[in-house]
Amino acid sequence: MEGSSFFLSLVLILLSARLLGECAVWLKIPPVMGEMLAGVILGPSLLGWVQPTEMIKLLAEFGLILLLFEVGLDADISQLARKGKQASIVALGGFITPFIAGFFVSYYLFNLSLIVALFVGGTLTATSIGVTLRVLRDLRRQHSNEAQIVLAAAVLDDILGVILLAVLFEFSASGEVNLINASKIFIFLVIFFALAPIVAKLMAATVGHFEKFSHIAGLIPTMIVSLILFFAWLSHAVGAPELLGGFAAGLALSRRFFLPFGAHLTQTDGRFVVRIEEKMKPIIQLFTPIFFVMVGLSLNLQEIDWSSGMVWKMTFIFILLAIASKMFGALLIRESIHSRWAIGLAMIPRAEVGLVFAELGRLSGVFDNELYAAMILTIAATTILPPFMMKYFYTRYGRHLHPGN
Amino acid sequence: MEGSSFFLSLVLILLSARLLGECAVWLKIPPVMGEMLAGVILGPSLLGWVQPTEMIKLLAEFGLILLLFEVGLDADISQLARKGKQASIVALGGFITPFIAGFFVSYYLFNLSLIVALFVGGTLTATSIGVTLRVLRDLRRQHSNEAQIVLAAAVLDDILGVILLAVLFEFSASGEVNLINASKIFIFLVIFFALAPIVAKLMAATVGHFEKFSHIAGLIPTMIVSLILFFAWLSHAVGAPELLGGFAAGLALSRRFFLPFGAHLTQTDGRFVVRIEEKMKPIIQLFTPIFFVMVGLSLNLQEIDWSSGMVWKMTFIFILLAIASKMFGALLIRESIHSRWAIGLAMIPRAEVGLVFAELGRLSGVFDNELYAAMILTIAATTILPPFMMKYFYTRYGRHLHPGN
Repeated sequence: MEGSSFFLSLVLILLSARLLGECAVWLKIPPVMGEMLAGVILGPSLLGWVQPTEMIKLLAEFGLILLLFEVGLDADISQLARKGKQASIVALGGFITPFIAGFFVSYYLFNLSLIVALFVGGTLTATSIGVTLRVLRDLRRQHSNEAQIVLAAAVLDDILGVILLAVLFEFSASGEVNLINASKIFIFLVIFFALAPIVAKLMAATVGHFEKFSHIAGLIPTMIVSLILFFAWLSHAVGAPELLGGFAAGLALSRRFFLPFGAHLTQTDGRFVVRIEEKMKPIIQLFTPIFFVMVGLSLNLQEIDWSSGMVWKMTFIFILLAIASKMFGALLIRESIHSRWAIGLAMIPRAEVGLVFAELGRLSGVFDNELYAAMILTIAATTILPPFMMKYFYTRYGRHLHPGN
Repeated sequence: MEGSSFFLSLVLILLSARLLGECAVWLKIPPVMGEMLAGVILGPSLLGWVQPTEMIKLLAEFGLILLLFEVGLDADISQLARKGKQASIVALGGFITPFIAGFFVSYYLFNLSLIVALFVGGTLTATSIGVTLRVLRDLRRQHSNEAQIVLAAAVLDDILGVILLAVLFEFSASGEVNLINASKIFIFLVIFFALAPIVAKLMAATVGHFEKFSHIAGLIPTMIVSLILFFAWLSHAVGAPELLGGFAAGLALSRRFFLPFGAHLTQTDGRFVVRIEEKMKPIIQLFTPIFFVMVGLSLNLQEIDWSSGMVWKMTFIFILLAIASKMFGALLIRESIHSRWAIGLAMIPRAEVGLVFAELGRLSGVFDNELYAAMILTIAATTILPPFMMKYFYTRYGRHLHPGN
């Protein structure tokens, strides 16, 4: 029975992710970086104790789908409505600029192929709401004007990012950049996003109703995980990555999400969403770190030719691009110069969303080892640096900003 | 990517288990029977929609380990102390009698080999506390004298059963019945059960302590699952089945479990155990049904020669043996005749614990298709019939028993 060694691998993954994640927090670095490092240490790069087997890959995928479910569940659409205009400018600016900059540099400067260049651009578009939120909370600025704009923009970025991911995924699967396929997947997505909330809300209502009659404990975890996995399968069936299904399920069940028609009928009962969160959190918290460890495991640092200079050159240019292009969107809005800088800095972290792009690029064979390593290093830098930059900025210029309410 | 089809299988497993489990409860049948039937329907016996792949087997194994963790966590050792003498007689009588009867009939009547006969005996020893508890609760007799004896006896039966399972597992792995190996594993088990609580309590104390400092949510699910899986691996490493590790972890963390020395130091804080239960329940509830569906999946009814008569003969005799031998232990104690009958009836259900034995027998190649089917049918009959028998008995003779307090 190979079960035993698999369980030991799982113990190593869970414990090292926790240990290095906590260390990262202690060093004021986002915990995902620690979890990724755990994978690098356990994997072929260093110790070689844990192999990225089929089983562990599937659990990591499950963790990723659950992560996107949580992102969707936490997304506050009403926030977006409140700060809509400015947030849209920040989000679109911070989405289109890195995408175009990343694409052009990869395609023309590094002579990468069309699909590869598109994936590089896509990877640079991500914004990690988690990292930003943590730093703003540490600085007690989570209710400030600039925080509200950043959070709304990050929600929009998440949605745009997942759609872009679906389109790029289709390109990499079919092997060609085809606008007909892209439109097809876009239409699928629109239908999917229009129907998903209805299905999810109906299912939530059914679960909430049958909970009174159920004589077996655990109705919520079973039904919600089934819903998430069903959406993931459906998403894959229409040609999009599975994580999109998790995101759609989360968004649809979210407390603040409502449909334009029949809002009263379809809005999920607040208390029920709280119960869903309560029961789902332990499952999400258990599996999500496995994905980040997996990113580290699949990164074989020994296979990369570090002396070539190309990796370093790419990494350096991508880091500069990633930072500058995210600032650009923020500089377009009508706020004080200090607000614009604060917003721009808060938009930089890529973290988990960037890793999702990079991992999908690697899995579909678009990224080779060198490019994957450069992408990971870029994501790491744009995730580790901003917290320090933001703290420095607020210490020095914080008095010029409106205090948080 | 095969992830997508795997996720769909998982959805089918989870939803059908829930649906048929609820139907079973509605028909006053224990839910595990419905979950097993879901596996029979989805699997090669009928629809063939879900194959018992390596992945699903591993998740089922994880579910089984979690189930035994829960059994251990719920085990009330103090109950055992209170009703010690009578419970011991019931438990030992209801453990040794079916084992010897099952063994002799298999070995001498059906001419099965030594190891096979031992496994048949082992399968018949199980007592499912879950089924019994549910029925007693439905009858509002869960606090009665006979209920206390039955619950204490079932705890003891669980412990004896798991030890027997470990010894038989070693026999099937080494292919021979060897008393030196059996003593070796017995010594291992004693050391394991002596050290496990200390390790588990220390770990629980550490987790409880570090929870205050942790900045990443989900410390409890991560650490407790790691502990369970580590014990499962350890258990496998000393030659016992993995589920023993789950049981030991649960027993060690249990609220009512204390060590003979340094009780104050090692007793887990009650509130902390409540928090562990709260966080672990959703995970346990999600994965446990997968095991029972797996039992149904691995039962290919089409491969069994139903016309041979041998299956029916074995099933019939085993059912009679299973019922009579469990009654025997109860008849030995000094209680009123009605109490003895009530206790005897409540000891009959095998359910999950019997299925664990049967599944391990099948996995290690000890049971062929026919014998496995006969065992499953026996377990099903001894699980489905007692609730009806108990209800009939209490309706007719309940007035002769002391009312529940």
